[in-house]
Amino acid sequence: MQEDTIPPAAGEARRRALESIAGMKAECFPGSERIYLDSPGGARVPFRQINLKAPNPPVVVYDTSGVFGDPAATLDLHVGAPGIRSGWIRRLPLESREIPGHPDHFIRTPSRTVRRARKGEAVTQLALARKGIVTPEMEFVAVRESQKTDPREQGAYTGEQIRQEVASGRAIIPANINHPELEPMIIGSRFLVKVNANIGSSSMGSSVEEEIEKMVWAVRWGADTVMDLSTGRRIAETREAIIRNSPVPVGTVPIYETLDRAGGVPEDLSWELFREVLVEQAEQGVDYFTIHAGLLRRLIPLAARRLTGIVSRGGAAVAKWCMTHRQENFLYEHFPEICQICADYDVALSLGDGLRPGSVHDANDEAQFGELKVLGELTRTAWDHGVQVMIEGPGHVPLDGIELNMRKEIEDCHGAPFYTLGPVITDIAPGYDHFTSAAGASVIGWHGCAMLCYVTPKEHLGLPGREDVRQGMVAYKIAAHAADLARHHPLAAIRDNAMSKARAEFRWNDQFALAMDPYTAKSMFLENSGQKICDHDFNFCSMCGPKFCSVRISREIRELAAREGLL
Amino acid sequence: MQEDTIPPAAGEARRRALESIAGMKAECFPGSERIYLDSPGGARVPFRQINLKAPNPPVVVYDTSGVFGDPAATLDLHVGAPGIRSGWIRRLPLESREIPGHPDHFIRTPSRTVRRARKGEAVTQLALARKGIVTPEMEFVAVRESQKTDPREQGAYTGEQIRQEVASGRAIIPANINHPELEPMIIGSRFLVKVNANIGSSSMGSSVEEEIEKMVWAVRWGADTVMDLSTGRRIAETREAIIRNSPVPVGTVPIYETLDRAGGVPEDLSWELFREVLVEQAEQGVDYFTIHAGLLRRLIPLAARRLTGIVSRGGAAVAKWCMTHRQENFLYEHFPEICQICADYDVALSLGDGLRPGSVHDANDEAQFGELKVLGELTRTAWDHGVQVMIEGPGHVPLDGIELNMRKEIEDCHGAPFYTLGPVITDIAPGYDHFTSAAGASVIGWHGCAMLCYVTPKEHLGLPGREDVRQGMVAYKIAAHAADLARHHPLAAIRDNAMSKARAEFRWNDQFALAMDPYTAKSMFLENSGQKICDHDFNFCSMCGPKFCSVRISREIRELAAREGLL
Repeated sequence: MQEDTIPPAAGEARRRALESIAGMKAECFPGSERIYLDSPGGARVPFRQINLKAPNPPVVVYDTSGVFGDPAATLDLHVGAPGIRSGWIRRLPLESREIPGHPDHFIRTPSRTVRRARKGEAVTQLALARKGIVTPEMEFVAVRESQKTDPREQGAYTGEQIRQEVASGRAIIPANINHPELEPMIIGSRFLVKVNANIGSSSMGSSVEEEIEKMVWAVRWGADTVMDLSTGRRIAETREAIIRNSPVPVGTVPIYETLDRAGGVPEDLSWELFREVLVEQAEQGVDYFTIHAGLLRRLIPLAARRLTGIVSRGGAAVAKWCMTHRQENFLYEHFPEICQICADYDVALSLGDGLRPGSVHDANDEAQFGELKVLGELTRTAWDHGVQVMIEGPGHVPLDGIELNMRKEIEDCHGAPFYTLGPVITDIAPGYDHFTSAAGASVIGWHGCAMLCYVTPKEHLGLPGREDVRQGMVAYKIAAHAADLARHHPLAAIRDNAMSKARAEFRWNDQFALAMDPYTAKSMFLENSGQKICDHDFNFCSMCGPKFCSVRISREIRELAAREGLL
Repeated sequence: MQEDTIPPAAGEARRRALESIAGMKAECFPGSERIYLDSPGGARVPFRQINLKAPNPPVVVYDTSGVFGDPAATLDLHVGAPGIRSGWIRRLPLESREIPGHPDHFIRTPSRTVRRARKGEAVTQLALARKGIVTPEMEFVAVRESQKTDPREQGAYTGEQIRQEVASGRAIIPANINHPELEPMIIGSRFLVKVNANIGSSSMGSSVEEEIEKMVWAVRWGADTVMDLSTGRRIAETREAIIRNSPVPVGTVPIYETLDRAGGVPEDLSWELFREVLVEQAEQGVDYFTIHAGLLRRLIPLAARRLTGIVSRGGAAVAKWCMTHRQENFLYEHFPEICQICADYDVALSLGDGLRPGSVHDANDEAQFGELKVLGELTRTAWDHGVQVMIEGPGHVPLDGIELNMRKEIEDCHGAPFYTLGPVITDIAPGYDHFTSAAGASVIGWHGCAMLCYVTPKEHLGLPGREDVRQGMVAYKIAAHAADLARHHPLAAIRDNAMSKARAEFRWNDQFALAMDPYTAKSMFLENSGQKICDHDFNFCSMCGPKFCSVRISREIRELAAREGLL
């Protein structure tokens, strides 16, 4: 909350971010337009439609960019995004109060309404699902996941199907009642694989403006959720700016802010301080909390013996507290109270893997799997409180150990969705850990992981900047899509097949439009082949030149084969 | 062979390459030095030794950079590398003749000795292995793969073990008797996973100088073999320049040069023209040939029906020839003669997958697997001629279809080593196909693939340049190493564990030295954290700042645990 000034070294980056924010316009990727499908609940569900050369039908894709991807929208980041859930939230049994704004903060609104469940009332998506209620969020998600507005259409999800998945605990819809700006989304192994982008400042760098810019970049490049991991200055102000503008669920690790309030001294953490932070963040609208409640005291010696010990920041802080005070983890001891707070605001729990391995050497060891068993026990407790749960996973795991993680998580945590950081499949490539981890992420996604937490090229080296966020997002959208393909998701192959057809027909601009990163694809093409080839859809490129193009020869073969009646 | 001038557009790139070649010095990566271990056969086997802060032992790694990685060497690219195999080759039953040089070519030597097996004499590594002969190449490989000079040491390979693997056909040592500059290496599923780098010009770009520079970059960044896929100007001169300087096996696809001589018209291909090219390339010293002999006429209609038809350049040309002339593939018909040529020079065969899928849609189809069965039949024929064989594989395959490719290859091709291009696991990320394919490559490597053919970011977009070669190599070295780790290769984890220990001890410079790409790792670190942190091994970085560092807190926990006797 402190109003520290930005350190001079960071001035340049902040100036750039300020300019970027001031000039920010809502826009779509080239070759695409924003479309909306109506959900049966009356909401407009956003998609990106990639338009191709006639007579090829457009390809419609999931769109996370919210208001930033709708060219018809006007942006005011100092006010925040429109509250598309406001009407839905008002119908819940809530109590509310007004809290004043901070005119000198990034968000300049004079006041804001803060809501919580009325005593004894259940307002979480899980509790409502169990009561048989199909919420507007579930209706929204049904359209979003299937691209179908009419539940009777082939391949459509009904709101009722979504409700059943949420009720069973196999999927969650993180949607704090204080985050009306959110476009609801679902995390579960039967749905499209999701990607989270970590952003947030450290004491050595970044500003509110840079973090907002990273959030916008993240959702433009496809982040399904963002986690604000700020540990630097102005933590609460940064988070407020992110939540008010974020079209996707925002997660946090509340122990970070608690540790900041404890002066950075793990020994000075306390349940009371933690509780205060939890309530404040829940009132702000945080959609899910990472809580390291499974890191029990008895597991710490197992982790201390490792090559890389405890690499989770929250896990290390909690373990230090336990060791110093010779007491059980207070997050474990107070877990039912944590659940009660989450239930009051519908904050989902992301049960943290404080003992995740920090090296392939430490992967799949007793410490890690011991904690996972505790997370399974906590899952039951959370579900008893009507709180939605997902489980965090590693980290660093060699390729041959990945599937085991998924299998154990399903068994030990009763089918709650898995949410993994990578895993990194080798430790020797700092600077490329977006890739070493996305490769592992694609494999665990294929085996059923519901959400992949991205890693940027800066992992193990420094705080990521805007370009690192983009690189991390692209690598992870590829991983998630490859996992969807491998899981035979009915929507996944449509885009691949459209790309392959565009390749076979030399539709260069269509290839760029269909690409995960149209800008890079086009600029690489132009580097050697030039604008003319692309404007005229010439049937060759610089890779093989006009004489040696297999795609062109292959077309001739098809014609020959057709003429001979061989097709 | 034509002495065309370089097109003006490419002039700048060529000028830069000329300068780069003129100023080229042999050098090691930062923090490393070149060391040699003596093989029992008397050869000096090169390694890179990564030196770490005392008392940490150095880490020794496989080194493909040849003379370019030995700071003690003086380079003259116009003459070529030292012929370390010359003495070994002279002892074989060969006949030889002198051929004059081309004073206006890149290689300026006045003449060169060309050798071939004397009639009736067997000189291939396979034939010698079957006779029970442990060749100097096998002795060299034994040290190279195990880092052990004394065959009695724990974990050492003996030359005899290498001989057995080669004799069984499960591994190959591509080593043309006309490539004395080669440092022998082995390709087989029981050895370290290898990486091939494709280089070569197209008619739309590049020059001899640029291709030589790409070769040097490729081996510096770890290429175990390079394929010269030139289809542009001065094909033979480019290849000569590459072979004379290359410390690694050089592969080609001879149908490319044949097609060039046929004026780029597939219908004008002929066995006679092809035979001429084969012999010339074998005499130049090409170590392995990709031959698309498995693409039978009856398989073509299956491929023509596909979404992306035939994407192999060689495959498309051959198929066009078959369709036009209504004749069986002449490479299949003349396969025994091809084998005889290969046997005369010890050129290994890389049986090409002319029908590899060009999209995830076409993966694992009847055309692809039909061709694979034919490759198995051809493998037997080649082995009967004493010719070493590996099998080429796809291409584009979704994650869930990769393992099947490996299984079928082992079954259908009798255990011959598999050599795959990627596979790409999704088609929608042009500009990132080094990554989409390296992710697939890591998985197939884990399942037993012996060599991975890299893909650069330019794949599907244009001809790769020097920087693309580097990006492709780094992605694939990561994939190959991750596969080695997953296969529990005894040498693989040493480097990962050294990196993890350096991380836990904040030895920043050691982390950079151990990194796959030390330059990128260090520059990313300096971007936010600065030189001082790295010079003094400060115990934090910009990622979390000094207060929130889990690695530091974890060290304190370990001390606490040790003090309480918990470790």
